[in-house]
Amino acid sequence: MDGTQDNRQAATGPREATKVVTGKEAGADKGKSGKGKEGKESKEAVQAITPQAVDFSRWYLDVIQKADLMDYAPVRGCIVFKPEGYALWEACQAGLDRRFKETGHRNAYFPTLIPASFLEKEKEHVEGFNPELPWVTEAGGEKLEEPLALRPTSETIIGSMYAQWIHSYRDLPVLINQWANVFRWEKRTLPFLRTTEFLWQEGHTAHATEEEARAETMRMLGVYTDFVQNDLAIPVFRGQKTPSEKFAGAVETYSIEAMMKDGKAVQAGTSHYLGTNFAESFGIRFLDQDNQLRPVHTTSWGASTRLLGCIVMVHGDDRGLVLPPKIAPTQVVIIPILGAQEREAVLNAAHQLYDQLRAAGVRVKLDDREGFRPGWKFNEYEMRGVPLRIEVGPRDLAAGVVTVGRRDTLEKGQLALNAVTTGVKAMLEEVQANLFRKAQQFQAEHTSDAETLADLEQLLETKGGFVLAGWCGEAACEAKVKEQTKATSRNMPLEIPGHLSVHPHAHCLVCGRPAIHQVWFARAY
Amino acid sequence: MDGTQDNRQAATGPREATKVVTGKEAGADKGKSGKGKEGKESKEAVQAITPQAVDFSRWYLDVIQKADLMDYAPVRGCIVFKPEGYALWEACQAGLDRRFKETGHRNAYFPTLIPASFLEKEKEHVEGFNPELPWVTEAGGEKLEEPLALRPTSETIIGSMYAQWIHSYRDLPVLINQWANVFRWEKRTLPFLRTTEFLWQEGHTAHATEEEARAETMRMLGVYTDFVQNDLAIPVFRGQKTPSEKFAGAVETYSIEAMMKDGKAVQAGTSHYLGTNFAESFGIRFLDQDNQLRPVHTTSWGASTRLLGCIVMVHGDDRGLVLPPKIAPTQVVIIPILGAQEREAVLNAAHQLYDQLRAAGVRVKLDDREGFRPGWKFNEYEMRGVPLRIEVGPRDLAAGVVTVGRRDTLEKGQLALNAVTTGVKAMLEEVQANLFRKAQQFQAEHTSDAETLADLEQLLETKGGFVLAGWCGEAACEAKVKEQTKATSRNMPLEIPGHLSVHPHAHCLVCGRPAIHQVWFARAY
Repeated sequence: MDGTQDNRQAATGPREATKVVTGKEAGADKGKSGKGKEGKESKEAVQAITPQAVDFSRWYLDVIQKADLMDYAPVRGCIVFKPEGYALWEACQAGLDRRFKETGHRNAYFPTLIPASFLEKEKEHVEGFNPELPWVTEAGGEKLEEPLALRPTSETIIGSMYAQWIHSYRDLPVLINQWANVFRWEKRTLPFLRTTEFLWQEGHTAHATEEEARAETMRMLGVYTDFVQNDLAIPVFRGQKTPSEKFAGAVETYSIEAMMKDGKAVQAGTSHYLGTNFAESFGIRFLDQDNQLRPVHTTSWGASTRLLGCIVMVHGDDRGLVLPPKIAPTQVVIIPILGAQEREAVLNAAHQLYDQLRAAGVRVKLDDREGFRPGWKFNEYEMRGVPLRIEVGPRDLAAGVVTVGRRDTLEKGQLALNAVTTGVKAMLEEVQANLFRKAQQFQAEHTSDAETLADLEQLLETKGGFVLAGWCGEAACEAKVKEQTKATSRNMPLEIPGHLSVHPHAHCLVCGRPAIHQVWFARAY
Repeated sequence: MDGTQDNRQAATGPREATKVVTGKEAGADKGKSGKGKEGKESKEAVQAITPQAVDFSRWYLDVIQKADLMDYAPVRGCIVFKPEGYALWEACQAGLDRRFKETGHRNAYFPTLIPASFLEKEKEHVEGFNPELPWVTEAGGEKLEEPLALRPTSETIIGSMYAQWIHSYRDLPVLINQWANVFRWEKRTLPFLRTTEFLWQEGHTAHATEEEARAETMRMLGVYTDFVQNDLAIPVFRGQKTPSEKFAGAVETYSIEAMMKDGKAVQAGTSHYLGTNFAESFGIRFLDQDNQLRPVHTTSWGASTRLLGCIVMVHGDDRGLVLPPKIAPTQVVIIPILGAQEREAVLNAAHQLYDQLRAAGVRVKLDDREGFRPGWKFNEYEMRGVPLRIEVGPRDLAAGVVTVGRRDTLEKGQLALNAVTTGVKAMLEEVQANLFRKAQQFQAEHTSDAETLADLEQLLETKGGFVLAGWCGEAACEAKVKEQTKATSRNMPLEIPGHLSVHPHAHCLVCGRPAIHQVWFARAY
């Protein structure tokens, strides 16, 4: 898939596709058009989205622009998170932040600018991140004595503060999270998945013992798994990264890996046990209960706006976005069918439904704009991924019902007018559960195992997805897989799906020596 | 008042004062100490806070550190927002974000890095901000062709996007807000009030007409006034900035000005009518209903982490922070009085109260740590500004009551055990109202008016605070005031307090010519 820059020209597309959400729509949330929108419909007819089967990359770039999630920024590899896209990030923030606080963490904020000397203190860390850093060298009209990097992650600056804050075992654990922007000067960029600047959260904790720090590492991997599976309806494989894929400076890195609809992997969240590496580099020491000075054990864990790319590529289809109800900014759209007759009754019923659903805590929008045909609106909200559509028409009203369309199955059904709220709530739960089931089924269908490199190669060509294999633990064998298949090791799974025919694999898929680990291989974003 | 750098050494203070909030306290929110905290109390005895009357600057720096709101960062002029401080910012975010959304705005996110050429497009803007910019000149191991500034504010980058998004009157208004970090390389810094990097929100809207844009400018000034007065309990003077004090690139700037307890002013929020300045510079044009291509009218408005400084300096006293209940991370702390007898009954009652209040939506904390005397805990939570303290002791319990202490008045009273929840809720409202009343009274007592520069000088020396005077509109006269008194024009008020003896002032306080405007003068942060 090409990067942001390469696609800039092609992906900008027609003007209509980049229409910004206006105050009227956003504010009243009833989509009243005001004056003079007639005749706009033809110009705004939903542009064809490249089918996934034709070109998945093209499909992705089409959808994120037409659904108004983002736009390309005039800065290398940067994007603008438009209101529809940012609202998804706000939903991720809310779901994660609640879980972080429930597990005892508090938020704080540390500086963006990191002195060069700080980054150099942890050798592996600086080697891992140095090639990607942007540097501030001048400020306030003067050349700086020491260049300042824009943070690619904040272990170093936070470590330097923890060294000042932590003195005794009584000060531990320290459980802090930060919501922030970070910067990595990537060669090839792709909206949401890999951009020069992105948004994320990074947790940084310090503990008295290895045991506690390891427990925290796994707890936060669990928090990510819970959020991504339950709120985003995306099934993931949990596991440990191989040494060559771990975070620069970590002892161990754990990840959750999600499978996109093209079979490629996205690392959706990571949790690192950092051992005493940063504690030693930054002098984060504490007096233990026996009055001995010891380094703390630290962890860090992060999830980013990549999650938006996952949402699109796991659930989306040829009609556009498909949003899980739990995070959809709009869960239900009400569209009145306004013909020549019964206009007022239909509008009244639509407004009543809107008020009812809103009072029941459903995120609902009423689109009673004139000058747009109902069919055009159906397409529009399907493209934007709204989970449920309620059609209110004169014939239905006479029968005491409304028609409800599901975005996930594209099925239509009816609900009695006096039972819409409970019906809608139940359907939203069904949609959420169904999206997860579908994604899980897709994942299962694209998961296999290989005994040899040749097996792996063939499976990647025919079936795609994730392939489990044995591995001897040698970096050379891992590199060989990448070189030959472009698949990378995703992680060494904590759980292995039951449907795989052969496991554990006894031999390394490359060299045939005894396998020490089971590894997921996949092509990845 | 000295800047961050100057105070770095002195303000770091003893280790005990910088203890970070640990997971145990933050997570369980019940403050259980676990093992072995005995004997810590003496080391952690609340350090004396410099009295306000002795040295207000010193008092401020003492309080924000001892109450654990911030720490100095190892980057010039930057601070760390520690969990207690960041929680106040989260409360500000919640209160403002809700109001922004209620007035039809949506959040988005634009890049931090701004190409030099963008900043140069609006002449006044670049002149205003250029001296304060940090520049990224290298990235990814290469020298950049065009330097990128770290945003001091985002009119330029957002303007460039609006030019791509807005084509027709149907696309208007655009009502977008951004929560972000911004950078200004200030010569003298002061925690929260003026730092190299700070956090803020910036609203950016585009409208078809001047009338609409002006209405938006005033609407958002109203939103800030409502939030700051009702949630932060800080009375403000609304008014228009003089041309020399307006935002670089604005046609008109409006501000709300708050008065600190040393009589100095802080600009707590600003709202700018930008006219067509940025629209012309960035080509943001639309086809109006008559098919004429016209520039949009834009606004921008912002409030920042300066608000934290205001909260401290408006309500705080010699015992430390005083937090308005609406934004206090902890509204009520329960402290069991654990003597030799009835320990279990007291602890049970304390836990029951905790559960009750929590279920009623009160942000409550139970501190049942052993090894800290109740009196020490009273001081600690007073210093941290918790609005209400509930003491649960065996004698009170026997009488079916608890003792409640108010942070704002330092008064103690009793509540019947079976009426604690309603009693606490009523008291929280009283505290909130009382803090606003007290601040309003202070403001009234330190507000006066002057006929001449000599009057102004004398009033600033004797009474301090804000002084209203007439002004001819000439920048030279305004400059003369600053030169002679160090007071700057705060704003030209929209409303004038009734208690002022003489107004409108007929003559300019400097030159004696007819006054065109009434102006608040004050020394300011």
